[in-house]
Amino acid sequence: VEEGARDAFARHGLMALLGAELVEVGDGRCVIELAQSDGVTQHHGYFHAGAIGAVLDTAGGFAASSTTARADDVLTVEYKLNLLRPAVGARLRAEASVLRAGKQLVVCRGEAYVGDKLCAAMQQTVMIGRDAPR
Amino acid sequence: VEEGARDAFARHGLMALLGAELVEVGDGRCVIELAQSDGVTQHHGYFHAGAIGAVLDTAGGFAASSTTARADDVLTVEYKLNLLRPAVGARLRAEASVLRAGKQLVVCRGEAYVGDKLCAAMQQTVMIGRDAPR
Amino acid sequence: VEEGARDAFARHGLMALLGAELVEVGDGRCVIELAQSDGVTQHHGYFHAGAIGAVLDTAGGFAASSTTARADDVLTVEYKLNLLRPAVGARLRAEASVLRAGKQLVVCRGEAYVGDKLCAAMQQTVMIGRDAPR
Amino acid sequence: VEEGARDAFARHGLMALLGAELVEVGDGRCVIELAQSDGVTQHHGYFHAGAIGAVLDTAGGFAASSTTARADDVLTVEYKLNLLRPAVGARLRAEASVLRAGKQLVVCRGEAYVGDKLCAAMQQTVMIGRDAPR
Repeated sequence: VEEGARDAFARHGLMALLGAELVEVGDGRCVIELAQSDGVTQHHGYFHAGAIGAVLDTAGGFAASSTTARADDVLTVEYKLNLLRPAVGARLRAEASVLRAGKQLVVCRGEAYVGDKLCAAMQQTVMIGRDAPR
Repeated sequence: VEEGARDAFARHGLMALLGAELVEVGDGRCVIELAQSDGVTQHHGYFHAGAIGAVLDTAGGFAASSTTARADDVLTVEYKLNLLRPAVGARLRAEASVLRAGKQLVVCRGEAYVGDKLCAAMQQTVMIGRDAPR
Repeated sequence: VEEGARDAFARHGLMALLGAELVEVGDGRCVIELAQSDGVTQHHGYFHAGAIGAVLDTAGGFAASSTTARADDVLTVEYKLNLLRPAVGARLRAEASVLRAGKQLVVCRGEAYVGDKLCAAMQQTVMIGRDAPR
Repeated sequence: VEEGARDAFARHGLMALLGAELVEVGDGRCVIELAQSDGVTQHHGYFHAGAIGAVLDTAGGFAASSTTARADDVLTVEYKLNLLRPAVGARLRAEASVLRAGKQLVVCRGEAYVGDKLCAAMQQTVMIGRDAPR
């Protein structure tokens, strides 16, 4: 993982709180892993939809950042998450990649796996740039 | 807040980790508040999209639960979040309510405010029932 | 309905093809109605999800346009539609309004009714401006 | 294309009205094509977001149907569409495939192309079954 991205990730308080780990980032792609803990589950012991959404949203933001020199100026416009099956296991792996990099808007897709089971799918829009229109 | 809901909320490890507080639940509506802290922000110091999504998703689940006797059997099918402006301030208030309660699927909408500023809007599907079809 | 909006609506070939009618537009709000016909239904005779999406998306675009002088420069970034119950009846009424008007991005919500039954809910992002970032 | 699917497609009045053509369906996958015409465009002459949504939603429904014997009992729960670039050209190709087939809920993804340009991306939930929970 390149140093700038690692620093930016370290400044995401939420990722630190959840115990998420930046595994890979670059060329429009990012992978984040999340270990199972009491803090990231819901009442059935599954990974919480909100925790899955948080790591996938962050992975999409870093995938988008990696396509631009303005990596610090990334804001989520929107994301949409489908939960496909209960996410039960030791470790969740969130992968995101850029589908389309426009001038200011970047669209990403992401998937979350526990082992080889696909547990969630995300589609997301992020905005890049100092003069972001939002 | 009714005791059963408070117990269920207490079992959501993610809500405890974030420091979220169940303010109100009942009659197809739920309000959760989240205090600003390093753990719920992103690198600009705004509330993290993932933290906003987590509390809104949870608020929607509890709003849906409140319309059924099977409050423990609620799973998120999907949610979609739009971030409307940077969420900066001491406290985020997430409100969700049921738009349509079907036999097994319940559709909710939610909004997140900092002060009187609308910062995010969610639309969500949750599933209720022991024999949930997912 | 103001003339500029009526002209723009008339240039939407899809709205003409579906037989949709612009009922009201202005101040960040738009209403479009759609009469039942073989051409807008699916195989059960319900209004087709795609037809409901088309009129709600268009209503959102016109609601957004009504908040700007650059009404012709509106493009949908994304929309999300929940179908809440089968939409059966003579006439579908699609209402959309602006939730947040940013510099270039506008977020809208919309609802579709048959009679007084809420049948669908939409959340949408549109982009305004000649130098649209997409 | 198998006969049952062709008959079901023919009963979708909206697909006939738009002039859409069922190109391929089976094994959790479906392709529909749409020729450019005044009736499927918006005021810039691009394929209308609503028309793109309609064919992608339908393609997802048929992809889901192809995984079950109850092909006639398919209803869209929700779909979400991102428009990635203006869709300009003679012919739009909508491809959808099943990401996860649950007991009653099926999640699909779809993409729309003009030539080799990816113009739109969809994520969708459909419901299968006579006793559909909606």
